Amino acid sequence: MTAPEVFTLPAIAAFHAAGGSPVAVAEAALARIEAWADPALFLARVPPEAVRARAAALAAEGPRGRALYGVPFVVKDNIDVAGLPTTAACPAFAYSPAEDAPAVARLLAAGAVLLGKTNLDQFATGLNGTRSPHGTPRNPVAPGCIPGGSSSGSATAVAAGIAGFSLGTDTAGSGRVPAMANNIVGLKPSLGLVPTQGVVPACRSLDCVSVFALTVEDAATVLGVIAGPSPEDRYARPAPAGWQARPAPQPAWRLAASLPEHLVFDSPEDAALYEAALARAALGGSVTRVDLAPFLAIARRLYDGAWVAERTAALRGMVEDRPEALHPVTRGILAAGLEKRTIEAWEDFHAAAEARRLARALFAAADILVLPTAPGLPDLATLTAEPVAANSRLGTYTNFVNICDLSALAVPAGFRANGRPAGVTLVGPAFAEARLAGLGAMLHAAAGVALGASTAPVPPPPGPPPLAPDELPLLAIGAHMAGLPLNLQLRGHGGRFLRAARTAPLYRLHDLGNRPGLVRVASGGVAVAGELWALPAAGIGPFLAEIPPPLGFGRVTLEDGSTPLGFLCEAAGVIDAPDISALGGWRAHLQSRKEG
Amino acid sequence: MTAPEVFTLPAIAAFHAAGGSPVAVAEAALARIEAWADPALFLARVPPEAVRARAAALAAEGPRGRALYGVPFVVKDNIDVAGLPTTAACPAFAYSPAEDAPAVARLLAAGAVLLGKTNLDQFATGLNGTRSPHGTPRNPVAPGCIPGGSSSGSATAVAAGIAGFSLGTDTAGSGRVPAMANNIVGLKPSLGLVPTQGVVPACRSLDCVSVFALTVEDAATVLGVIAGPSPEDRYARPAPAGWQARPAPQPAWRLAASLPEHLVFDSPEDAALYEAALARAALGGSVTRVDLAPFLAIARRLYDGAWVAERTAALRGMVEDRPEALHPVTRGILAAGLEKRTIEAWEDFHAAAEARRLARALFAAADILVLPTAPGLPDLATLTAEPVAANSRLGTYTNFVNICDLSALAVPAGFRANGRPAGVTLVGPAFAEARLAGLGAMLHAAAGVALGASTAPVPPPPGPPPLAPDELPLLAIGAHMAGLPLNLQLRGHGGRFLRAARTAPLYRLHDLGNRPGLVRVASGGVAVAGELWALPAAGIGPFLAEIPPPLGFGRVTLEDGSTPLGFLCEAAGVIDAPDISALGGWRAHLQSRKEG
Repeated sequence: MTAPEVFTLPAIAAFHAAGGSPVAVAEAALARIEAWADPALFLARVPPEAVRARAAALAAEGPRGRALYGVPFVVKDNIDVAGLPTTAACPAFAYSPAEDAPAVARLLAAGAVLLGKTNLDQFATGLNGTRSPHGTPRNPVAPGCIPGGSSSGSATAVAAGIAGFSLGTDTAGSGRVPAMANNIVGLKPSLGLVPTQGVVPACRSLDCVSVFALTVEDAATVLGVIAGPSPEDRYARPAPAGWQARPAPQPAWRLAASLPEHLVFDSPEDAALYEAALARAALGGSVTRVDLAPFLAIARRLYDGAWVAERTAALRGMVEDRPEALHPVTRGILAAGLEKRTIEAWEDFHAAAEARRLARALFAAADILVLPTAPGLPDLATLTAEPVAANSRLGTYTNFVNICDLSALAVPAGFRANGRPAGVTLVGPAFAEARLAGLGAMLHAAAGVALGASTAPVPPPPGPPPLAPDELPLLAIGAHMAGLPLNLQLRGHGGRFLRAARTAPLYRLHDLGNRPGLVRVASGGVAVAGELWALPAAGIGPFLAEIPPPLGFGRVTLEDGSTPLGFLCEAAGVIDAPDISALGGWRAHLQSRKEG
Repeated sequence: MTAPEVFTLPAIAAFHAAGGSPVAVAEAALARIEAWADPALFLARVPPEAVRARAAALAAEGPRGRALYGVPFVVKDNIDVAGLPTTAACPAFAYSPAEDAPAVARLLAAGAVLLGKTNLDQFATGLNGTRSPHGTPRNPVAPGCIPGGSSSGSATAVAAGIAGFSLGTDTAGSGRVPAMANNIVGLKPSLGLVPTQGVVPACRSLDCVSVFALTVEDAATVLGVIAGPSPEDRYARPAPAGWQARPAPQPAWRLAASLPEHLVFDSPEDAALYEAALARAALGGSVTRVDLAPFLAIARRLYDGAWVAERTAALRGMVEDRPEALHPVTRGILAAGLEKRTIEAWEDFHAAAEARRLARALFAAADILVLPTAPGLPDLATLTAEPVAANSRLGTYTNFVNICDLSALAVPAGFRANGRPAGVTLVGPAFAEARLAGLGAMLHAAAGVALGASTAPVPPPPGPPPLAPDELPLLAIGAHMAGLPLNLQLRGHGGRFLRAARTAPLYRLHDLGNRPGLVRVASGGVAVAGELWALPAAGIGPFLAEIPPPLGFGRVTLEDGSTPLGFLCEAAGVIDAPDISALGGWRAHLQSRKEG
């Protein structure tokens, strides 16, 4: 069997399910590395024989339910992998880590196959991909353009079809700008969601491990594997319950976008691609234009203020003792950090607190902020001419995100006529990854692009996701069903529609006036039509508190034998209520009342 | 009618309920100010005529349900009150605020009567009360001893019986050490819970508005009034739902205390008072000794590292342009902040992140950390001899708390034979104020002390608090009742016992084997005995998910007419189950089974 042409996770899983071997996938990945032949892509490779051996070992074990069984991946070379040097693209800085970073260890435990460590802007300082002594990884989507950075190699390896996904890092946009440059998906998780142990610090307080993938679904799957506190990680934060529960896209989402005066683009085409994506995101609904100025202002402090000294502090030995070993642009940036005074740093921190306050206010009034990923994609010559200014421009819409404690998802938004890709980034509050993915998958599918540098179509956005660990199923049988008067109450408690459903033939249905009463009976029962909804477990109590007697919540038996929660009525409450069981459900009853 | 001798909130409320006037309380407060005659207590007084006018206006309005109706209070003079200067005990710094700080505005809206602004260690920099150009407020409990600081006057005014409560601030212990020194309660809320707008910054990122009161209950009431985000406050944080719900003290609490080697005391008596309080806290249960060393280490950075520069940054104009206007000790501390470099500040911040990680680990394994409030209470001469060293020693157990994002409650713990008071501080994670209050009220009542400088006894700890806004009442009628096999399940979902209760005579009770089935009937019903429990609303759904059919949750009508949630059984589920209604309840049925 031939390995899948495009390495999406479902394609690889289907290949394995059909009897294909991880060895075939690994061989295909190795062949693609040779065919792509970019000497600037890898800073260290896992020897081909070791890749084959790993794949063979996996093949011998079988999938065992592992989410990433046999999926080839690469890791940015500022993240530790035991057995390979960590260099951060600075040969003088190289060290040999004894342990995998937790994110890497979790990927390997999930069955993924590591191909190697990829090139980056030295010390993850840059957004363009040219700041490496090892050259610039080739952009497989837009030849002659930058690959984006700092996670340059991790992005090009996915777009070129070599890896199914990759790890990058993102402090100021390094996980998003390369996604745009390579027509792939870049997921920048919330601060503290993925352990940053075993990552060479840029700004430790702002660094995130990020994910590149061909599709939003794949990125979400990888995040699910690598997320979660590591006990030893001082920047870990517990995620709120239910953070992975995916809402379906809905017109009721409140979208925000920048006021036009704060939007800058490289070309009118870039602007048009953004506006088209924004219109698709709104699904015909409305968008609130918000003032980005305070966020753009805090972003400027990232390289002028306290946080440049955070970078310097992390590399102080290099900057003070071996400056000549640094890339000249990087050296200039880091040296400035030596001079900063703490009394001025506090102005930055208080300004950051104010920006976070404004972000909280923004996201109290909006669910998702839709921004361009960057003003446009420059070519390599532009970066050579203006290595700092052109880089700064790339971070226009990304720099403020980590300082403001936000999550972000970059998705493709189409191509300019000259073949340069554009992207939009969905920004939400911390731990809003699932919400961003819900909209992101829809936008990606509607963007009219192929996957990465391939010609494969973007898969349609998935249907409602299955029940999350923090959700409970609840059968609605009356006015709480979609489109009926109390449906907003159900949604208000976090309910999301799963599917139409029907009870086992064990019940009688009564008309209590404006709502039905469902009562289980020992004999003579009928099946009753309803809708199965998912509710956050924490929302069940507050919802129940609003339900007047004689109704309550108990177990309802469905025709498939499952027993979700549902509305039950006390038998004493239906004594004088008409029995409407013959109609088979509340909607049919409402229809007959209308007709009658 | 004569005003209450001791200004607890219940005493003042009872006085008003019995027909007493706020004017009488105000007159008593004014008379006590004259009698106490401490020229170092107030930095600005509300003119007596204005106090009387305010009280008269309140008397004309009546209580209108206001929690602090007619209660006299004072405010530390680093918190803005419109119409009075804010000086922070530095005359050269004085300004006239146009608005009340939100905390003050909320107190006034709740009916409290302001008496004036109180003395403090200049710029809230100190823990002893002697660092003011206006002299040292007199300690009403231990003459010759320091009053504690920096919130010196706010604490002595409460202990001396002048104010029913007061506002302080707390960055490193300024809301706790004075509570110990004055034999009163000091509540240091979580960062971001009470707005710090309108507060002269010490360390803005760590500052908290704190509460002094005679009892734990009174402090909790005042916190309830002043807590909650102010939209303009950049350091505001949303509190988790249910943060005010008070658990009852229980032996199952997991207490932590320091390893003996990290405990320092001024005298063996101080050590014995602490150990006695700790033994009372444990209620005969066990205490885990934890390693305080990392927390003591991070505390040292508060005055040696980045945070001293935060103080300097807030007062940079004073330090650079008018250093002669500063108290000599304060000047020395603040001047050191000018020299700090940001690359070194980051070492402090990363160390703080590590300390917070360790604190999270500590509070994952323990509910409350019980510490001495300070090693002991020094006399004034000691502070004169060692103004910095003796001050630092006072902060041994308080300095790390805000950096580690914790909440704390200081309560009296008894007196040494020489009349110096001691105290214990309960420390919890952020937003654990209610938990600390539950244990704190019990410890205070058991400490064998009177209230402040009075001879009035400490009130007994309150019974179970009423239902909190985020709780729902649930009637247990079977194996979930106290002492029965499933009670742990109910407690595991956050349940707490409220009271025994009985249904209206509308039900029949059936024996389903190991649990009862309660069914409402149209006629022939009986009253059924049960227990009313409070559950967090968010816990209802997860609890319900564990309840097998034919049971569910619905509304149960009690004999008092109320309709809490309760266990209801589907009528179809009891068809073959014995009717045990005649026994009136599950406990009686279990008893009869045992006897039978």
